[in-house]
Amino acid sequence: MAASAAAAEVSNRRVTLKRYVTGFPAEDDMEVVAATARLAVPPGSAAAVVKNLYLSCDPYMRGRMSRHDEASYVPDFVPGEVLTTFGVSKVVESGHPGYKPGDLVWGMTGCEEYTLVTNPETLFRISHPEFPLSYYTGVLGMPGLTAYVGFFDVAKPKKGEYVFVSAASGAVGQLVGQLAKITGCYVVGSAGSDEKVNLLKTKFGFDNAFNYKKEHDLNAALKRCFPEGIDIYFENVGGAMLDAVLLNMRLRGRVSMCGLISQYNLEEPEGVRNLFCVVAKRIRMEGFIVMDYFGTYGKFEEEMAGYLKEGKITYVEDVVEGIENTPAALIGLFHGRNVGKQLVAVARE
Amino acid sequence: MAASAAAAEVSNRRVTLKRYVTGFPAEDDMEVVAATARLAVPPGSAAAVVKNLYLSCDPYMRGRMSRHDEASYVPDFVPGEVLTTFGVSKVVESGHPGYKPGDLVWGMTGCEEYTLVTNPETLFRISHPEFPLSYYTGVLGMPGLTAYVGFFDVAKPKKGEYVFVSAASGAVGQLVGQLAKITGCYVVGSAGSDEKVNLLKTKFGFDNAFNYKKEHDLNAALKRCFPEGIDIYFENVGGAMLDAVLLNMRLRGRVSMCGLISQYNLEEPEGVRNLFCVVAKRIRMEGFIVMDYFGTYGKFEEEMAGYLKEGKITYVEDVVEGIENTPAALIGLFHGRNVGKQLVAVARE
Ligand SMILES: NC(=O)c1ccc[n+]([C@@H]2O[C@H](COP(=O)([O-])OP(=O)(O)OC[C@H]3O[C@@H](n4cnc5c(N)ncnc54)[C@H](OP(=O)(O)O)[C@@H]3O)[C@@H](O)[C@H]2O)c1
Ligand SMILES: NC(=O)c1ccc[n+]([C@@H]2O[C@H](COP(=O)([O-])OP(=O)(O)OC[C@H]3O[C@@H](n4cnc5c(N)ncnc54)[C@H](OP(=O)(O)O)[C@@H]3O)[C@@H](O)[C@H]2O)c1
Repeated sequence: MAASAAAAEVSNRRVTLKRYVTGFPAEDDMEVVAATARLAVPPGSAAAVVKNLYLSCDPYMRGRMSRHDEASYVPDFVPGEVLTTFGVSKVVESGHPGYKPGDLVWGMTGCEEYTLVTNPETLFRISHPEFPLSYYTGVLGMPGLTAYVGFFDVAKPKKGEYVFVSAASGAVGQLVGQLAKITGCYVVGSAGSDEKVNLLKTKFGFDNAFNYKKEHDLNAALKRCFPEGIDIYFENVGGAMLDAVLLNMRLRGRVSMCGLISQYNLEEPEGVRNLFCVVAKRIRMEGFIVMDYFGTYGKFEEEMAGYLKEGKITYVEDVVEGIENTPAALIGLFHGRNVGKQLVAVARE
Repeated sequence: MAASAAAAEVSNRRVTLKRYVTGFPAEDDMEVVAATARLAVPPGSAAAVVKNLYLSCDPYMRGRMSRHDEASYVPDFVPGEVLTTFGVSKVVESGHPGYKPGDLVWGMTGCEEYTLVTNPETLFRISHPEFPLSYYTGVLGMPGLTAYVGFFDVAKPKKGEYVFVSAASGAVGQLVGQLAKITGCYVVGSAGSDEKVNLLKTKFGFDNAFNYKKEHDLNAALKRCFPEGIDIYFENVGGAMLDAVLLNMRLRGRVSMCGLISQYNLEEPEGVRNLFCVVAKRIRMEGFIVMDYFGTYGKFEEEMAGYLKEGKITYVEDVVEGIENTPAALIGLFHGRNVGKQLVAVARE
């Protein structure tokens, strides 16, 4: 269906950045504004209009809320403009030969009800609509691929190895733990509440877990959980936890540097002191960005769908209803308010 | 010649550790004591008595002067006992079938004139006595192999890449720079005096160099030398330099973690703050210990001997005469007093 002059104009609430953020973000740094969208693509363009069903809240979005003098690995958000994020969407109109109304996709979209996607070829098709579609913001989407490549491609686990995961109950962490169990590793996670620790042990099959907020000595907590030391650290938080982990790494251990959420809101990052361990224990610390692996998504999706079907992997989501709750959900990540993958349900179909 | 009851007893000055060290070591933390040695191996043993010709002064020896509650990657020295170090030696007596008097070897020996080596099979034979024998404490010995494996095996350089080396005029650094030039890289070094910087540019063929003590902003100095950023950092010093380098690394850069000499005398290591760069730029930081590569020494020795013969590599040594000057030479490393590889000539034959 081509764009027509009579295309419907609909209400389109959207979340914009009000101002660049320093320190912890507040709800008030964003604004939920009433706007409208035309459900039509510009004549002759290969764009698509999508209706956003689920929007993902991700820690890296905090970085985009700051102003960077030197370009970062993702562009900064622009005050006054709509935030962008990964989302699950349904195609409403398309000028692109590869997409037709009704197609289900996931990928970069706007924090709003409808988005005009100018490069729909960057969207991924949803091959398994038999799962909850929201899974494509998590286990079958960006965080899932992050856990998969950060664990298998970067950390290169071997059966029987000792694995530690921080922010372990989160979107990425809960999957790393379960992938480690599938691989035959011993896995321990840390999280910020007893409820989350319980989830790790009972629902996700971690061998052990601790509440890092209740430990006054992280080094001692790790020694208690890993008397033989740690082969793989899947790093989600950074700071004091990384320092403690380095003391407990084994020879030729690997640190998969996924994220450092404990540092994202600090004016100046904390210093990590125990880097001589990297030399003495021949440690490899390696960073990665999931976008580099998007070319492998199809293979990943099939494998992960298989694990879900076989019941080998389970997934916990934290769903808030309504686009107007996006700012609160987003900043909640930095206070550990989410239990599992944080996402926003914008529309249920 | 087997041990005989009439074996000669000779004077054997030795350097012992007086006390465990905290902070910067002082000459007075060591003692040069007069002792004697019997030039004989215990009957029936496979030991060898060696005469030490050249003794190596190495930064890692500082770590051995401290008391560690948890075992480090090398054992602590023991107060009252002779220090051990890599040295070039001549076999005087041998109970080992593989060694005979007159053989030239290098390997772990005592900081003394004569040493009873109980496991001579750990010593390496010197296959190229046509070079100055002292080279086997440096370019053809442990520091040479360190530069070689830390650059080629750990950093995995490609032609045309941008390489930065700290402590660049030292035993290891001067070789890393020259190996980088042989590989077709662009290489910049930092060192602690204008004399050393001059050496880097005129003698070792570095493309550029700077005196880090004269730069009040290391980040700016690196930006000046690497407008396109750094692909490989050969890390010898740590601390503030590592923090500045991380800001200047390129995508998929590698940090070969060889040593952190700026931290060895601190009660508490400095914190490194810019580790988020490791994530955002997909950096690999990897530590190594040269001992793990001793099995590859023979191959290395031949390759390096070739470069020396062809004049592709040159080597600068800082030789002090007399075992009594070992303590001063050793502590000089931590004040940058050495120009090139620091070693002690104990005997000239
Ligand atoms: N490299 C990549 O391509 C890539 C891709 C996706 C995500 N990531 C990174 O992966 C990490 C996890 O992301 P996610 O999406 O799975 O988020 P998440 O874990 O679902 O949510 C964030 C969690 O981080 C924890 N946290 C917040 N502040 C903390 C602090 N100061 N110290 C310790 N923990 C803190 C909280 O859990 P607790 O209650 O346990 O504190 C919070 O629930 C983040 O660092 C993110 O940036 C990287
Ligand atoms: N991983 C391994 O297996 C292995 C093996 C051998 C050596 N290493 C490491 O490699 C590094 C270099 O060793 P080397 O034998 O070649 O020593 P070297 O460079 O010949 O001598 C040490 C030099 O370090 C520099 N230095 C001292 N204190 C410093 C400070 N606070 N900040 C910056 N630079 C400082 C000084 O040069 P400036 O005048 O330039 O300051 C000094 O001359 C050391 O970190 C050592 O521990 C590692």
